This record gives sequence, structure tokens and C-alpha cells, in this order.
Amino acid sequence: MKLAKLFALVALCLASLSLSALAADPLSSWNDGKAKQSIVAFVEKVTKEGSPDFVPVPERIATFDNDGTLWAEQPMYFQAFFVFDRIKLLAQQHPEWREKEPFASVLNGDVKAALAGGEHALLEMAMATHAGMTTEEFEKIVTDWITTAKHPKTDRLFTEMVYQPMIEVLAYLRANGFKTFIVSGGGIEFMRPWTEKVYGIPPEQVIGSSIKTKFEMRDGKPVLVRLPEINFVDDKAGKPVTIQMHIGRRPVAAFGNSDGDLQMLQWTTTGQGVRFCLYVHHTDAKREWAYGRKSSIGRLNKGLDEAKARGWTVVDMKNDWKVVFPFEGK
Amino acid sequence: MKLAKLFALVALCLASLSLSALAADPLSSWNDGKAKQSIVAFVEKVTKEGSPDFVPVPERIATFDNDGTLWAEQPMYFQAFFVFDRIKLLAQQHPEWREKEPFASVLNGDVKAALAGGEHALLEMAMATHAGMTTEEFEKIVTDWITTAKHPKTDRLFTEMVYQPMIEVLAYLRANGFKTFIVSGGGIEFMRPWTEKVYGIPPEQVIGSSIKTKFEMRDGKPVLVRLPEINFVDDKAGKPVTIQMHIGRRPVAAFGNSDGDLQMLQWTTTGQGVRFCLYVHHTDAKREWAYGRKSSIGRLNKGLDEAKARGWTVVDMKNDWKVVFPFEGK
Repeated sequence: MKLAKLFALVALCLASLSLSALAADPLSSWNDGKAKQSIVAFVEKVTKEGSPDFVPVPERIATFDNDGTLWAEQPMYFQAFFVFDRIKLLAQQHPEWREKEPFASVLNGDVKAALAGGEHALLEMAMATHAGMTTEEFEKIVTDWITTAKHPKTDRLFTEMVYQPMIEVLAYLRANGFKTFIVSGGGIEFMRPWTEKVYGIPPEQVIGSSIKTKFEMRDGKPVLVRLPEINFVDDKAGKPVTIQMHIGRRPVAAFGNSDGDLQMLQWTTTGQGVRFCLYVHHTDAKREWAYGRKSSIGRLNKGLDEAKARGWTVVDMKNDWKVVFPFEGK
Repeated sequence: MKLAKLFALVALCLASLSLSALAADPLSSWNDGKAKQSIVAFVEKVTKEGSPDFVPVPERIATFDNDGTLWAEQPMYFQAFFVFDRIKLLAQQHPEWREKEPFASVLNGDVKAALAGGEHALLEMAMATHAGMTTEEFEKIVTDWITTAKHPKTDRLFTEMVYQPMIEVLAYLRANGFKTFIVSGGGIEFMRPWTEKVYGIPPEQVIGSSIKTKFEMRDGKPVLVRLPEINFVDDKAGKPVTIQMHIGRRPVAAFGNSDGDLQMLQWTTTGQGVRFCLYVHHTDAKREWAYGRKSSIGRLNKGLDEAKARGWTVVDMKNDWKVVFPFEGK
């Protein structure tokens, strides 16, 4: 009996030790510094009952951009790799693509020429590869691709190229009663098949750009068919619009990396009470990429000025992150 | 010491008794019968671990129509009362309405004439009363109205005219790991200000018809302005479309009361595994209203046939519900 009690006591001590070790550093991939401290200070402030800054659990909404904020976006948006792979795969059914831009350039492996047509060319390629099937068929296409396709530089699955420190922020916020949402310019149905597994974010908390769908009966079975028509582009001023549409509540914290996220951060920060805004600044040419003010992908120019003026947190990836990708050092 | 122990024991017994009493009937406003039994049987089936019908918690999505399913909808949709009240209030700023239909009829108290213009007239009235302000201003307008306006027949607040048995279903499902969503033809921002308090459904789980909004800076402060332009009508074939857009997952249970909910129920029931569909049939002319196959509001005709053919649950309000409204007998 006495021995059993002793064992129980020891077990209890060990359990509380490991718990306090966990509690001690939920952001273990972050170097100690202003960025990390600002995140912790914010969370402690809004979760402290009785404090004037306390935010009730239902109002703890945090929104995250995806490309460049939760996973990498170089040398081009990962969804563009998906588009090009789909075009190559579908080319057999479209012999006319051999002669038709931008498809011909994709099939010739000339990405630069394929993208030379700008937005119009991009839209044409997106529609050719994202529409014409049911939502269930598209989900399977994305799942098959995302579990096999590799990044040309790292030879890793794209879902391995997520930022470990940001995964920790997501978990830390959720452990403190936050609901975490993605608000991305990327395709909503391109993200949903894998965000729950990779980020712990369920489909109903994923918001993004979309095309229209149509309800149809096929052989007595209802399906939703994806139409080649833009429904909403979830970028810049579109982000607060979809936040209101899907969440209906202003976030208390918002995370982005580019000027495309600026309106989301402005919308967040001008709510009443304590708010938190963070920009990830890509400053690490060695472990990731270094870009910002002049980049065509993920430009952070106006946003960087506004962040400084307003005292938002700016993460210096090179100095603030101990680890960038989860696979480092493995 | 002994006495203290005895007290503790008694307290424990009482606590467990009241807990088991609660557990014994989470649907206490339902008469015992097929409808109630079908709800309980479904929930027990999908929550039983190891059973082939088990549904993991993240997939436990239940969608509810609002008008006629969670609250009453006679003698006209409650949002129409809001529209008419707004028109009367705004008339001072719109002297031209005295001469202009459908506004003139509203101001003369002739509801029938106001609605004679059909969908076009309704749309015109909706835009005149729902657009032109910021989202925050609209939220305040709705809150002010919903906390003061009374139903002409019962003289009760509209939020008191919710169905007690359905409130119990919502709570019962949530207690069993379900996320409950509203999917309504009513205005999304007309519902959000009060659904959390009344139904326990937070804004991010409210889906409905919407108008477009636009992000703007006003005196350096970002606002979302409501535009007089339809974004989406969330009825009939539109319901599965918005379920996919907002939730991104097929519900395992769906609740409606009219043909406008039929596609939502079809979409739900044709997913894999056990599914549950329920129609509320308004059969109680005394405590509520009796209508269905031929009603212009909340018509349940095709839906009733399909429910019978497919074995969906059809609630006979008169016989299945002990209580309709929470205020009964008070």
C-alpha cells in the first residue's frame, strides 16, 4: 500500500513536470526575441480572466493567410505547380493545347512563357484544370496530387514545406481557446483536403478563392458540379469581405506575409480592445527565400511600412526562427 | 468527520441523480413516438465507438433550416416584419415612397398589396432596407429591432417564437459532439446578431442569403459597406452550394420543413454511411399553424412525398411535440 502510494506520487510528479515543461515553451522553434514575446504577451493578456483586455472564448478568432504565411510560396505559388501538372496530365484529351497558349508553353516546359499572358492566361489555365468535375472528384484529384507531388528545389512533399514555428502558433492559440481560420487567395477546395491533417484546421474553417458550383441530379444522385466561372477572389480588399461572409465576427488576431493581407490586418486591428497583427518577413535566403518589397510573389511593401507605423509584429525569419521547416535536421 | 462524509455522499448521490435525470431525457418536450425515437436511435448509432456506423466527431455536422424549422414563419417570414418596420421608419427620409409601390402600400398598412408585386417588389424592399449601411450599423439595426419588435398574433418577441423541441435537438446533438449549423433562405446578417443567444449557434455557423459588401476606408478606418446587390439566394438548390462553400463537408444530419429544404436533405442523405433527415410538418392549428402541401409560405409537398418514399422522419407537430413554444404554460 505504501509503495503503491509512493509510485502514484512519483507518477504524478513526473506528469506535472512534463506538463510544465510543455507549458513552458509552446513556441520552442522560436528564438527568444520581440516577435515571440509579443505573441505570448498577447495571448496571456486576452486569456486572463478579470483583466480589462480579456476576450471571451467565442470571440477568440484568429485568421491566417496560407501562401507564404503557413507554407512556402517560392519559386511560385504551390497551386501553380498543381495547375501545370494537371495540364500535362490532361493534354492527351486536349490535342488542341499543343498549338494554343498558354497551354503550349506549359507542355514545352516553359513556365515563364506560360505566365507571360498575365492574369488572363492564369485564369484560363485555372478554369481548364479546376472546373468541369464534381466537388467529390476534385477533392480526389487534389488528394492524389498533394500526397505525391514534390517541390522542385527540396524534393519534399509540398505539405512538408510548412513553417514549423507557425504550426506551433496555431496549436498555441487553439490551446488557449482560439478558433483558427485560413483566409487565403488560394483555392478553397485546393486547401480543404489536407488542412486538417497538416494544420489542424477543419474544412469549415478554411476560406479562400472559389469558382461557382451548381447542384445537379445525376442518375438520381445529387452532385455539385464545378463551373468555369470565378465566384470570389479572396485577396486584398476581398479578405475582410470573406471574413465577414464566413465568420461574421472580426478576428482578434491576424497573420499574413504580403500586401495581399494588408486589408485583413487593417480590418482586424481596428476592432475594439486588444488586437494582434503579425507579418512574416521572408529574410532567410539560406533556409528558405529572401524577398519582400519588390517581389512579384508575396510582395511586402506597403504592409511593411504600415506594420512599422502601427507597431505590428514583424517576424524576421532568419533571426526569429530556430527552425523553418519540420524536416530540418532530420 | 463522519457527518461531513455523509453529507458529501448525499451531495454526490443527488448530483448523480440529477445528472442521470438529465441524461435520461434530453428531449423532454417530445412525446414518445417514432419521431423522437428516430432521433435518439440515430445519435446513439453514430456515437457508438467501434460500431460500423460510428462517425468521428469532426464529421458530425448537422444543418438546420431556420424559418419554420427553428422558429415560426407565419403569417409571413419574420424578416418581412423587419422590412416593413424599417420602411415605416425610413419613410421620412424617402418622401417619394408615398407615391411609389410597393412602399406606398406598406405605408398604408396594406401588406397584401405590398406583396402583390411578387419577387421583384420583395427584392426592392429588401435592398431599400438592408443595404447602404456598414455591416456594424446593420448589426445594431437588427439587434435593436429583434429585442423590441413583437409578433402580431402572440405579442411575443420573435425570438420567443422558437420551437422548444428543436432547441432540445440542437443541444442534444451538440452534447454528442455535433457542430450545428443554420442554412437558411433568410438573411445571413439578419440572423447572426441573435442566433448564439437563442440557439447556441455562433455567427460562423450561420449560413444564409446575402447581399454583396465592399471594403472601404472611411476617415482612415476600414468598413464593410452593404451594397444593394444580391450575392446569393440560399434556397432550394442553393442550399447544398452554400453548405459546400461554408462547411466543405457533407452533413450527416439535416432538418427542414419545406420544399426549399429538399435539396439539402437529398444532398445529406446520399452521403456514405448512416444519415438522418427530418421534416417538421406544421399540423397544429391550435398551438401554432397548420399548413403544408398548398401553402405559399413553407410549402411542403414534393418534400413530403420524398420523405415518405425514403423513410425520413416527419414530425407531426400536433402529436409529437408536448410543447411548441418555450413560453407555453408560463
